[in-house]
Amino acid sequence: MMKNTATLLITCPDRKGLVAAIADFLYSHDANILHADQHQDSENNLFLMRIEWDLNGFAIPVEDIPRHFAPVASRFEMQWQLKLSAKKPQVAIMVSQYDHCLADLLHRHQGGELNCDISLIISNHRHTEKLAAFYGIPFHCIEVTRENKAEAEAKQFALFDENRIDLIVLARYMQILSPDFVQRYPQRIINIHHSFLPAFVGARPYHRAFERGVKLIGATSHYVTEVLDEGPIIEQDITRISHREQVEDLIQKGRDLERIVLSRAVRWHIESRILVYANKTVVFD
Amino acid sequence: MMKNTATLLITCPDRKGLVAAIADFLYSHDANILHADQHQDSENNLFLMRIEWDLNGFAIPVEDIPRHFAPVASRFEMQWQLKLSAKKPQVAIMVSQYDHCLADLLHRHQGGELNCDISLIISNHRHTEKLAAFYGIPFHCIEVTRENKAEAEAKQFALFDENRIDLIVLARYMQILSPDFVQRYPQRIINIHHSFLPAFVGARPYHRAFERGVKLIGATSHYVTEVLDEGPIIEQDITRISHREQVEDLIQKGRDLERIVLSRAVRWHIESRILVYANKTVVFD
Amino acid sequence: MMKNTATLLITCPDRKGLVAAIADFLYSHDANILHADQHQDSENNLFLMRIEWDLNGFAIPVEDIPRHFAPVASRFEMQWQLKLSAKKPQVAIMVSQYDHCLADLLHRHQGGELNCDISLIISNHRHTEKLAAFYGIPFHCIEVTRENKAEAEAKQFALFDENRIDLIVLARYMQILSPDFVQRYPQRIINIHHSFLPAFVGARPYHRAFERGVKLIGATSHYVTEVLDEGPIIEQDITRISHREQVEDLIQKGRDLERIVLSRAVRWHIESRILVYANKTVVFD
Amino acid sequence: MMKNTATLLITCPDRKGLVAAIADFLYSHDANILHADQHQDSENNLFLMRIEWDLNGFAIPVEDIPRHFAPVASRFEMQWQLKLSAKKPQVAIMVSQYDHCLADLLHRHQGGELNCDISLIISNHRHTEKLAAFYGIPFHCIEVTRENKAEAEAKQFALFDENRIDLIVLARYMQILSPDFVQRYPQRIINIHHSFLPAFVGARPYHRAFERGVKLIGATSHYVTEVLDEGPIIEQDITRISHREQVEDLIQKGRDLERIVLSRAVRWHIESRILVYANKTVVFD
Repeated sequence: MMKNTATLLITCPDRKGLVAAIADFLYSHDANILHADQHQDSENNLFLMRIEWDLNGFAIPVEDIPRHFAPVASRFEMQWQLKLSAKKPQVAIMVSQYDHCLADLLHRHQGGELNCDISLIISNHRHTEKLAAFYGIPFHCIEVTRENKAEAEAKQFALFDENRIDLIVLARYMQILSPDFVQRYPQRIINIHHSFLPAFVGARPYHRAFERGVKLIGATSHYVTEVLDEGPIIEQDITRISHREQVEDLIQKGRDLERIVLSRAVRWHIESRILVYANKTVVFD
Repeated sequence: MMKNTATLLITCPDRKGLVAAIADFLYSHDANILHADQHQDSENNLFLMRIEWDLNGFAIPVEDIPRHFAPVASRFEMQWQLKLSAKKPQVAIMVSQYDHCLADLLHRHQGGELNCDISLIISNHRHTEKLAAFYGIPFHCIEVTRENKAEAEAKQFALFDENRIDLIVLARYMQILSPDFVQRYPQRIINIHHSFLPAFVGARPYHRAFERGVKLIGATSHYVTEVLDEGPIIEQDITRISHREQVEDLIQKGRDLERIVLSRAVRWHIESRILVYANKTVVFD
Repeated sequence: MMKNTATLLITCPDRKGLVAAIADFLYSHDANILHADQHQDSENNLFLMRIEWDLNGFAIPVEDIPRHFAPVASRFEMQWQLKLSAKKPQVAIMVSQYDHCLADLLHRHQGGELNCDISLIISNHRHTEKLAAFYGIPFHCIEVTRENKAEAEAKQFALFDENRIDLIVLARYMQILSPDFVQRYPQRIINIHHSFLPAFVGARPYHRAFERGVKLIGATSHYVTEVLDEGPIIEQDITRISHREQVEDLIQKGRDLERIVLSRAVRWHIESRILVYANKTVVFD
Repeated sequence: MMKNTATLLITCPDRKGLVAAIADFLYSHDANILHADQHQDSENNLFLMRIEWDLNGFAIPVEDIPRHFAPVASRFEMQWQLKLSAKKPQVAIMVSQYDHCLADLLHRHQGGELNCDISLIISNHRHTEKLAAFYGIPFHCIEVTRENKAEAEAKQFALFDENRIDLIVLARYMQILSPDFVQRYPQRIINIHHSFLPAFVGARPYHRAFERGVKLIGATSHYVTEVLDEGPIIEQDITRISHREQVEDLIQKGRDLERIVLSRAVRWHIESRILVYANKTVVFD
């Protein structure tokens, strides 16, 4: 049975009475709280909260929640988002030739791990077209060259608009997005980088890891910001390597990391578990 | 600067209004909440919470908190504990001949990682006496044989009473405690077992891990209950081994695991992060 | 460019002069040794070796290697296998309804990670038929009931014979094989068990892990022997869980483990890295 | 019983017949080979080997091994080192105020994990003097200022000479060594850096990890070269952190990593398991 819940994500200055005010608001309208998690950042005097409740039996109709919550939010100067489990996020995946992350996301989605609609796949190559077809996802090939970049992105924006895309996943998409692209979708573009950032920022991280002789390789999923590889980190993981492994082995082992680290980030975003502040993420579990 | 906080650990049937009632109680007495974390177990319809607040500026004197909180607790049928950071837990460590866990706990305590008093060390050998002396902890050698077990435990109980011991840590203490001992200190005895329980329950787990040819060895810290190695698990960790490693190597690698896994459990207990139910632990982070 | 190599896997009583004899044999016929790894088990007085050399420039034609090596082997009472990289192993995958391991193996195979032919897929359900078709692998649905088990296995054996199958991978195949089946393919059937064996031997390991309240879940790949879940362990890995995770979450997290742990075992087997003795494996890296 | 073994560490251009020549040399003098491991770096056409044999029954007296091996070495242009288990390395530990790595090394040494003599401890503070005394290791306080650095190092060199020091361990020694110091002890100074290099090169890595919002922190042990934090990496490990953890928590968690990562590097060096080439390490297991 599908659950029917609402989730509030709140960021505001830390003050006494905050939790009581939120709890009272929900309790007074008969909410059955399913999860609540909070975080205080004392250095920045910030309060961050995620609270999820069952909409069955909740006294306020969904469309009126914002109006009823507004006074509480205003009193505490809250930034807040309301997410409804019934409204699935619309996701676009962008990919180039390496298809392991794409195949992984599609398989997880089919298996029910990702509570979203994958509306479309955009690639600058035809390589993944059959895979998209197998999973029944519309596929758009938009080639990108130095000359046509703005034009290509315009086509991409049109597709995003048309499909009311909420989240863009760069599943090993090897083109750098323009500043305009990035600014249009703040905290709504997730990328996978094949190193444990901030080590090996930039291109060819596995080659550089091999040359440096590290004993661990990693992968990092992060929101895309205008500065390359500097956006808020959502998840990282590593695996051990030895002197016996060549660059090709690192690339192969890294694929498993990339799949897992990207899919976690996508899932957490879809489940409204992530709050961003100070170029960092809070991931509520 | 030492913080001066109170922490409530609460377990009760899950009902609407719980969080609001607790938050209202604290807010109405000017509490500055520092951390709050909760867990619902829907299968058992249980609500579990840990909430910590600053006592500076709190309107109720410490000694009156229980009286003021009692009506809330009673209304929701809560089991609850109140912990004060100013009142350090009194800890007894029991150890036999392997001293690595003891040395680790003493070093961490000295470095400020463990906010407790280590009141005494009890051993059935003299082996660790000098180590205890170096850290200035009273050392008691109580030999245990099949014949004198009851008598030996009586001496141990007397020491625990005298020192108002809150927590007993079995840091590789190789004697089995009597049922009487275990019943006296429910959820107040922490043991380290040198396997990833429930694999290799019982004696000589490293030898059996070697024979079975596992690729990982582990360690488990748990509360002691009457059934050997069956108590609620607090923490586990593992490390990878290969065919090159002999039993002695497993024992050596395992020591690092045992140290870390035991010290985490002790710290979490001391910081009142652990709630037990259904023979499992909730560890609030 | 494909490499063209030969690999010797050797097990014999440990004696002086072994390495010199093997090295002399290869050197005297102009072998260019690419990898050599050995292991001594002093307890069992066993010597185990894996040695791989380039066939380009090797003085003995491939088909004559056994005849030339026989005197060396005989002198040291060796059990030995010769593997040629040019002769790809023929693999059969058996699967029931959970398709994540199958999808993972097929995707890795397509991407070049597994140097084998996947000759066929056998399932007791139709669920994975389309997936098999997408990757172009012949699919055989053989239903198994209590009554027709012997008959069903006879069909399976016929398919294995016809396709000269070298390795059978149980990718979450939920039927117990008969003793006859197991005996036919010694050290040639790899299974994935969804726990860190020997914990949670048998059925429903995730449910039992949840009930026991462990802090880690694991997966184990092993060769199948007649005693269920007791065969030689090839690989294990674990992931951390918390009290927040329900059985469904364990199952989901476990899928990632199962995929990785099974695919490693299959790859190592295919690359002739595994030697079995004393119900354990040596995995040469 | 102490083993009495010899170990050869060899680096040379990769050529046919190498292994046969080494194996023949040992076999013809009745060596009982205990471990042999080799690595080919095809990119650099390098062959690296570690081979350990029992000196009981070996036909050549220890002092004559170099003379007998010289022709083999010369024929294949080998760089080689001969290590005897009977000749324990003499180790000096340098430390500043953080004493966790020092305490860990001393405890492991006492427990028999490190087959070396710890000849002396040098510190620029008096803080660890009592700890040194407890373990019975001579302690030398040599204060270092900007002005007296050369003089202080001269004192250190005198102590190293006097004690015939083979290995210098920087166990959180917070002074930068002069180029002269580093050049005197090539591949004989091991440092612990509190990050997964090359991330957070330089000072205050935990603070910078906290600011960057990484999800993992690490530690790296490496040989010291003239370029700070750029020497060959011996070992690395990481641990997971969350948004709940402040800089102090990172520092505390990091201590466990530092201890383990440094002690592994020291042990492997002492056991002659490490070969350095191309600013990387091969660690034979």
